Amino acid sequence: MPASEFTLIYRYFSALGRGEAVDLSVGDDCAILRLGEGERLATSVDTMVDGVHFPQDSFPEDIGFRAVSVAASDLAAMGARPLGMTVALTLPEPDEFWLNAFSQGLAAAVSEYELPLVGGDTTKGPLTITVQVLGAVPLDGALLRGGARPGDKLYVSGTLGDGAGALAFLAGDWQPEPDAAEYLLDRFNRPRARLALGRELLGRATAAIDISDGLLADAGHVAAASGVKLVIDPALLPLSDALQTYLSPKQVREWAMTGGDDYELCFTLPPGEQPPEGCTHIGSVEEGEGVDCGLAIDIPPGYQHF
Amino acid sequence: MPASEFTLIYRYFSALGRGEAVDLSVGDDCAILRLGEGERLATSVDTMVDGVHFPQDSFPEDIGFRAVSVAASDLAAMGARPLGMTVALTLPEPDEFWLNAFSQGLAAAVSEYELPLVGGDTTKGPLTITVQVLGAVPLDGALLRGGARPGDKLYVSGTLGDGAGALAFLAGDWQPEPDAAEYLLDRFNRPRARLALGRELLGRATAAIDISDGLLADAGHVAAASGVKLVIDPALLPLSDALQTYLSPKQVREWAMTGGDDYELCFTLPPGEQPPEGCTHIGSVEEGEGVDCGLAIDIPPGYQHF
Repeated sequence: MPASEFTLIYRYFSALGRGEAVDLSVGDDCAILRLGEGERLATSVDTMVDGVHFPQDSFPEDIGFRAVSVAASDLAAMGARPLGMTVALTLPEPDEFWLNAFSQGLAAAVSEYELPLVGGDTTKGPLTITVQVLGAVPLDGALLRGGARPGDKLYVSGTLGDGAGALAFLAGDWQPEPDAAEYLLDRFNRPRARLALGRELLGRATAAIDISDGLLADAGHVAAASGVKLVIDPALLPLSDALQTYLSPKQVREWAMTGGDDYELCFTLPPGEQPPEGCTHIGSVEEGEGVDCGLAIDIPPGYQHF
Repeated sequence: MPASEFTLIYRYFSALGRGEAVDLSVGDDCAILRLGEGERLATSVDTMVDGVHFPQDSFPEDIGFRAVSVAASDLAAMGARPLGMTVALTLPEPDEFWLNAFSQGLAAAVSEYELPLVGGDTTKGPLTITVQVLGAVPLDGALLRGGARPGDKLYVSGTLGDGAGALAFLAGDWQPEPDAAEYLLDRFNRPRARLALGRELLGRATAAIDISDGLLADAGHVAAASGVKLVIDPALLPLSDALQTYLSPKQVREWAMTGGDDYELCFTLPPGEQPPEGCTHIGSVEEGEGVDCGLAIDIPPGYQHF
């Protein structure tokens, strides 16, 4: 097909730009968004490279949904109200089938997160997707990493290790039963950014982060930013049946501790504060530094992008 | 060198995040920026791919400066007050020399545009740079493409065709004298986003766009969005001595009409409104559609990214 950049953009992405905060979407030099009075802008960017951040045979729908979820997860970790996003897409060639499927994945995420697509750029080159998310946080608060205090309790949402388990399955390292395989692939390909949970935690949690690089690494960021020690009890980690049914406790625990790609929230609450539904108490905050989980697990210094 | 992503980011980019609107810069899940009361957020994104949007032997300093300028030019075209930017950098390997030089180019742009670097992502892959710019426009206005009215006059800033002339020189198509070569390379490698001009035009210009794809293509976007015809007089085009001294008028005019990469502003003013200094009257707005320059030039339908 000969189709100019403009045609491509309009055909697949122009319907995804409507939203309450959107004054002007795709089609001018910039998009224009409104912020409510007494709010500040929260923004974050994430790039996904073909074969590095997703398997090369991933479905385009999943690539689109997952790219938005990964970026939106950072808004969740700040307790931000989603305003909109831009997507910069580098493609080897203007493949209409691929673009159609990719835009369906984006559309599912736009709808799920109420995060309109307000701008973008398409360029020719190796497949790379960069999603920039924009959200609003109150003038007097946001969920930061640096507020955990000794005596607080440590929580996570959902279950941990599913992303790592899915990647190991995709790599052929193990073979779950069909129902477990379906669950794990959905967890990896369609991670859900915890935006509602983040907003529920605003004004309640003392610190928060999303688990993108693995619990130990991300808890380490909270410990460092807060100047405290986080103590995690491995016996308390929330684990899915899909992993526990088929694998050794040691393997599952290791994935839950160090596997990335879960996009759950890890947060601290002051003593006496009740956790939201679906969240699990996994440890506590003490004086000191670093993360102590009582296990001899090699703690990677965060996911290594190189 | 073994250096984690965190080390790299902090070493080269953490000093570039200070600014009046910046409440929180690199280091948490999102950056947080403040908007003034009665303002809206303007945002745009641009990707540059190695060998497509800049020659493969470009200096990293120039790549950094140019990537920011190209994106910031869209803020200029909206009359936006710069707030901050994020940079997503995909690199084949963590090359310390390259990163140091690239960060110096970013730093020069941060300083020139007062556009702090408030976040980013570094990933492994083919060299690609995505810059997302964030600016503020008044609640009651912004420079849009759709406001040109019959009777308005058409203007451009600076000189046109220099970017195309520089690219042709880099491709070996012609050989300017050293002083002209230096001028043209600076115009290509270090284009200046016209942010001050854009803000000066707020409330005065009826339409504006930045010239990234070539005058004819970009004027075509204004014509289409405004529902008018733009008439350009080729004899009025502002041209640099560097081009006029060495090349045929026909060649220079063609580059000025269709060459991209100039990042000047093209705008319309109502009759009687005086243009800012450094801007040239090049035509007028009439009833009708499209762009008429009285020449038999093939009008490309915008720069073709594929």
